[in-house]
Amino acid sequence: MTSIATLGSHCSLQVLKGAKDEGLKTILVCEKKREKLYRRFPFIDELIIVDKFREVLDEKCQATLEQNDAVLIPHGTLIAQMSSEEIESIKTPIFGNKWILRWESDREMKEKLMREANLPMPKPVTNPSEIEKLSIVKRQGAAGGKGYFMVANEEDYNTKRNQLISEGVISKDETLYIQEYAAGVLAYLTFFYSPLKEELEFYGVDQRHESDIEGLGRIPSEQQLKTNKVPSFNVIGNSPLVLRESLLDEVYTMGENFVEAAKRIVAPGMNGPFCIEGVYDENAKFTSFEFSARIVAGSNIYMDGSPYYSLLFNETMSMGKRIAREVKTATESNQLDKITT
Amino acid sequence: MTSIATLGSHCSLQVLKGAKDEGLKTILVCEKKREKLYRRFPFIDELIIVDKFREVLDEKCQATLEQNDAVLIPHGTLIAQMSSEEIESIKTPIFGNKWILRWESDREMKEKLMREANLPMPKPVTNPSEIEKLSIVKRQGAAGGKGYFMVANEEDYNTKRNQLISEGVISKDETLYIQEYAAGVLAYLTFFYSPLKEELEFYGVDQRHESDIEGLGRIPSEQQLKTNKVPSFNVIGNSPLVLRESLLDEVYTMGENFVEAAKRIVAPGMNGPFCIEGVYDENAKFTSFEFSARIVAGSNIYMDGSPYYSLLFNETMSMGKRIAREVKTATESNQLDKITT
Amino acid sequence: MTSIATLGSHCSLQVLKGAKDEGLKTILVCEKKREKLYRRFPFIDELIIVDKFREVLDEKCQATLEQNDAVLIPHGTLIAQMSSEEIESIKTPIFGNKWILRWESDREMKEKLMREANLPMPKPVTNPSEIEKLSIVKRQGAAGGKGYFMVANEEDYNTKRNQLISEGVISKDETLYIQEYAAGVLAYLTFFYSPLKEELEFYGVDQRHESDIEGLGRIPSEQQLKTNKVPSFNVIGNSPLVLRESLLDEVYTMGENFVEAAKRIVAPGMNGPFCIEGVYDENAKFTSFEFSARIVAGSNIYMDGSPYYSLLFNETMSMGKRIAREVKTATESNQLDKITT
Repeated sequence: MTSIATLGSHCSLQVLKGAKDEGLKTILVCEKKREKLYRRFPFIDELIIVDKFREVLDEKCQATLEQNDAVLIPHGTLIAQMSSEEIESIKTPIFGNKWILRWESDREMKEKLMREANLPMPKPVTNPSEIEKLSIVKRQGAAGGKGYFMVANEEDYNTKRNQLISEGVISKDETLYIQEYAAGVLAYLTFFYSPLKEELEFYGVDQRHESDIEGLGRIPSEQQLKTNKVPSFNVIGNSPLVLRESLLDEVYTMGENFVEAAKRIVAPGMNGPFCIEGVYDENAKFTSFEFSARIVAGSNIYMDGSPYYSLLFNETMSMGKRIAREVKTATESNQLDKITT
Repeated sequence: MTSIATLGSHCSLQVLKGAKDEGLKTILVCEKKREKLYRRFPFIDELIIVDKFREVLDEKCQATLEQNDAVLIPHGTLIAQMSSEEIESIKTPIFGNKWILRWESDREMKEKLMREANLPMPKPVTNPSEIEKLSIVKRQGAAGGKGYFMVANEEDYNTKRNQLISEGVISKDETLYIQEYAAGVLAYLTFFYSPLKEELEFYGVDQRHESDIEGLGRIPSEQQLKTNKVPSFNVIGNSPLVLRESLLDEVYTMGENFVEAAKRIVAPGMNGPFCIEGVYDENAKFTSFEFSARIVAGSNIYMDGSPYYSLLFNETMSMGKRIAREVKTATESNQLDKITT
Repeated sequence: MTSIATLGSHCSLQVLKGAKDEGLKTILVCEKKREKLYRRFPFIDELIIVDKFREVLDEKCQATLEQNDAVLIPHGTLIAQMSSEEIESIKTPIFGNKWILRWESDREMKEKLMREANLPMPKPVTNPSEIEKLSIVKRQGAAGGKGYFMVANEEDYNTKRNQLISEGVISKDETLYIQEYAAGVLAYLTFFYSPLKEELEFYGVDQRHESDIEGLGRIPSEQQLKTNKVPSFNVIGNSPLVLRESLLDEVYTMGENFVEAAKRIVAPGMNGPFCIEGVYDENAKFTSFEFSARIVAGSNIYMDGSPYYSLLFNETMSMGKRIAREVKTATESNQLDKITT
């Protein structure tokens, strides 16, 4: 029997609960320090206890997964803790397209794929002296929003940068990346593309709650101006959102453009869940600053089903369950190679 | 067999999914450019393809609807795209009260009905020189929040107005409408009044996410003061909310006052879904700045049921399904004339 | 047959709907002025109409409850309207631990229990002259956030305090309580501890919407600085949130530490629902400013089930239903004394 395996973090509870609901065996690769947490959930059939997640690269762990006919569901933790080379070396079948994860991790490749998919992106600012509008300064690599800061002009940039260097948040020789700040309503658009049905599904929207920028709006301007703390963007959680229905057509178009671009430049394409992340401005124009080429943690808000999936399925359907359904269908029709890499 | 028809936008997916779940035939009046989107949803039985929604006024379209014994569910798009006269001229039975839609569209009639219903409204400011507290400046007509701006005093008003004129957002001779700004927790209260059961139901609360005002709280005061962009109020989406239970009694009272006021001044009254829109201030006092006399897009957040409807129904119930249930009940008991106009 | 009783406010609809779904009789102690509201809900079997909630202390009311084998579910309204002595004098079995409610009401006892549970708390500021970072000034007692204000330094403190005294919001001789302001993502963590199963369950997270502080982020800094209104913190409603899965281990640890601390110092311990309330800072470090030793109103957002409970139960489960389930199980196994005081 096929089983579903994943690393114990990010969205593993949703993924394995969904797999169990679909009647598949569930396996968690679990750090020793988290064993107590995950033992609480009876839908996890087997725990492979490791000291570090990188042990999933070891032959021993992969042998266990092979014995269980496991499909490994990749998520943000896999990407954060292993290099692209390491992920690509994993012999366990990985759900979706493991080759596209490299395009998510590398900023240049990421932007190349986004351009190929015609996703509108924020205007880059190549030099601090060219800051004309409100801009955001980002760090290279997956820093998760820590050390990002907003600036209104060059002087502002220098002041803030020096402050963060003196506070030890960023280093003096770190290359920073400036782009015009896209203000508005943040929206993380999650899709699922099924290579079996050759169909794109829109799963839903979530908003991220980041600290301590989220608290900023609750601090009166008078007090903000009397302190000089630079807010940060550390993701803490997620909440649900629905979009104006008139925006849905463009949402599907963006999703399809992304699927087609991925098919062209990174075979076998964007199979399974993915997320286009951005902001709607005052003209309801979407600007995308990021994508994720696998399940996102924001899907956790819909562990018991999303508004948009309730339109497509006559049952409660989380993204974890949707993935398991695809694996089950592929197994039954002998097409596992179509949905894994 | 009765069928449910609506225009393809706003909340049409929820409305037709609910109708399908109730066993009714579903018809979508669909703009050609959106055909691809709506073909994705198998619960839509028939698409009437049009170039523009106004074709719903044409005899051909109305004949098709008549053949199908269709009840047309009105929503925001119908109101935005047609005049009150045009809506009133539609021969297809319209769910609820088509005559009250005029009261929603016209600011003076709207305020008259709100006063009749005893809804507390923001204090109007008749002249810029009388701005004493934080105020909001609105444009006449259904501009959807674009070009609205906040002002602290007369000087501020003149500066902002001149800026928006020079940016081409508002025109020089446009009449603006000033009212004291009601700050606090925004709450959109949705109800359903059933003329069959003569009962009012409270469906739930949502919050609107507007661009780019929503992003303002994430921009540090220091940077806000260095730019001079005037934020706008373009609705992008909605999220769920529940209220302190101690506020529910007043919520029901407001809903009933509205139903009774409508009965008195615009026969046959406020049948079907409606929404009272406002803000709770620091004393938990509600001020209403708007109403909608039909289903609102905020109901989409509860496509798989709302917290408050889970108290009233022992099944999953969206507003779309609730409407279809009412149509079905009326059809079976030969009372369609009671719930349509 | 055991019945479930509660006061008509706060979360009584959720509690009694859950009880009805579990097949228990439901009784509402209802203020006369709210009778019309609560008569709307058919799952309420019996209303005990009172002029004031304090009549629940009267022999007559308690006799009725006794005849019905009622278990009384305590919530925020009980605590707000009665002294600890009065609550402890109630003869009707109270779900959970009525002795711990005193520890929730008294600030010193509350902090003692939080320290005992190793909950990280905001740093107190003992004197206005020692305000070094952004701080919040709170009033003693359950003022529910009204009159709280933020300050950046001593001068700021004096100005704001004088303003609120002159506005009549606080009184001149009132003792105020200053603590460093913990900025970030607010999170109200709700748990359920079952003494029958000796297991802790994590129910979910909500965010509170407070007026008029919530509206602050939508007022441009320029306008904020031109007015001198001090924002307030009056809770109006709640919305849902999920946390990064990597935070869950610490969440469970905090919950267990709290349960164990309560076992040690206030027998029989923290049975039933409780809530740890705080904020995640930019390092995802949690600081707790409060706890509730009973069901919280934030659980109302999950009247039709929470994301985290959908992991633990293969059915829709609200906190109200969970409580009723526990009462039912205890009744059937003759262990009511284990879950009530």
